[in-house]
Amino acid sequence: MNADIILETYNRIEPFINQTVVLTNSTLNQQFGCEIFFKCENFQKTGAFKARGAMNAVLTTPAELHQNGFITHSSGNHGAALAFAAAKVGSVATIIMPNNAPIPKIESVKRYGGTIVFCEPTLQSREETMAEVQKKTGATVVPPYNHQKVIEGQSTCAFELHQQVPNLDVVLAPIGGGGLMSGTALATSLFAPKTTVIGVEPFNASDAYESLQSGIIQPPKSTTTLADGLRTSLGDITFPILQKHLKEIRLVQEESIITAMKLIMETLKIVIEPSAAVTVGALLEDASFVIGKKVGIIICGGNVDLSKLPF
Amino acid sequence: MNADIILETYNRIEPFINQTVVLTNSTLNQQFGCEIFFKCENFQKTGAFKARGAMNAVLTTPAELHQNGFITHSSGNHGAALAFAAAKVGSVATIIMPNNAPIPKIESVKRYGGTIVFCEPTLQSREETMAEVQKKTGATVVPPYNHQKVIEGQSTCAFELHQQVPNLDVVLAPIGGGGLMSGTALATSLFAPKTTVIGVEPFNASDAYESLQSGIIQPPKSTTTLADGLRTSLGDITFPILQKHLKEIRLVQEESIITAMKLIMETLKIVIEPSAAVTVGALLEDASFVIGKKVGIIICGGNVDLSKLPF
Repeated sequence: MNADIILETYNRIEPFINQTVVLTNSTLNQQFGCEIFFKCENFQKTGAFKARGAMNAVLTTPAELHQNGFITHSSGNHGAALAFAAAKVGSVATIIMPNNAPIPKIESVKRYGGTIVFCEPTLQSREETMAEVQKKTGATVVPPYNHQKVIEGQSTCAFELHQQVPNLDVVLAPIGGGGLMSGTALATSLFAPKTTVIGVEPFNASDAYESLQSGIIQPPKSTTTLADGLRTSLGDITFPILQKHLKEIRLVQEESIITAMKLIMETLKIVIEPSAAVTVGALLEDASFVIGKKVGIIICGGNVDLSKLPF
Repeated sequence: MNADIILETYNRIEPFINQTVVLTNSTLNQQFGCEIFFKCENFQKTGAFKARGAMNAVLTTPAELHQNGFITHSSGNHGAALAFAAAKVGSVATIIMPNNAPIPKIESVKRYGGTIVFCEPTLQSREETMAEVQKKTGATVVPPYNHQKVIEGQSTCAFELHQQVPNLDVVLAPIGGGGLMSGTALATSLFAPKTTVIGVEPFNASDAYESLQSGIIQPPKSTTTLADGLRTSLGDITFPILQKHLKEIRLVQEESIITAMKLIMETLKIVIEPSAAVTVGALLEDASFVIGKKVGIIICGGNVDLSKLPF
């Protein structure tokens, strides 16, 4: 990827997405001894950065294919994002969801006009069901993260952040499948090459950490981490990007994720999902590496069941 | 008040407060059939618009009085705001609080360096205790709303909103003691005279509504409305301003306040306190008066105990 591709991507999706605000907070700055800039992708369309990647994948699909629709399997934010993006071009999206998916996620896909096809809650059933539907409809598959156009879309988030806040010393973002992290790392290497990029992952879903250590993609862990968006493992496109551009991955305990989630909601007054709290969780465990620095933190999303907050 | 006073006030407090963002949301626009602009004072310093008025009252107090400190009685957001404002000029604030005040409110005053003196939870005890401390210290009293400089400070919120979003058809704000509402009405009459100003009050704390109906200030109701910031009654400064500038007060049921609070948190992804939900609660009950219009809504604050959400 080069700078032109990110600029083109940004111009392509910009009419459809929000330029999200950056918030600061004196209390948190004082607590961590640094200056933090929170890039609020919880305010993004569909409540998560995923709208950027899905929108870009849809807009770069040849128009003659739009009539066949789009398809993905997702139990999370990517499903709603693809439904949203497809609707924006007058197309439709089919989302394959496990039959035990949380009600709010199902409602969210429906709200954006997506068609849901339920399957058994196994990866095999997801893939088989998707292949079956795809064969019938000829829909274009848009994977949640391991896809060039999706990653390019996600890169616009850090691109925006670097325009809004130049000269950051560090950028922190969470790692799930690596789509956001890859986009963040690429945009930063191109538009803020002096900025250090650090990923954060739950200790209970440390597959990306172990992938980078071992040099081989590790499978997803059987994990119950509260950060449900970060349970997936890296893909063959995201992995080499992180190998090349990521300085470090920090692991964070569940307890810190919960404390951070409450702290962010109380001080910044924003609603976030657990996956968005891991970065501040890492600072709660050890903030020595950011002291005195200008730190960008990407708040990845805000889709959480408010009647089931973990505190 | 005239336009120059608001401009002077804005220039005075601007270095100390946040220019808060205005958020929009397609889902809510669709639901209510209008275009809503949410002025997010939950992102204001101390988590509520109160920082504006307190800051202005402190900055317009002669410097030679700063050494005696400031004082108020408050069980809510004004206490923290005064502590914050006093600290900004190197002074101190004493906050008289009822001994049954919620822990988060006490912690908030402490966070901003305020000194707390507890009293019995009656108005008499509050006033007696305050008089006693004031006599000893000579501190400057800054009332929560019935005070010219406080109202002028609050007026900067709607002033900002009208700069950010010109040509609003309607502005909605909650009414407690009338400080925010007076400031909103005054700023709107001066900077957006074509905009209609409507107040919203809980049905269970309808003293302002009844004051306007009867032409006489009605005492606070013995109320348990969830909107704890709106339990107070009008004062002799705020009342005539509302008489002159307010088109209408709408009353809202508790049930709608709760539904609106959840709706705002889920869609806008912001943390708000119950008092900030009454305006959207009014729309849930009847949105016919805003259909097709450009509507400004002032989100007054976000100080809520997240472990005790009412849904």
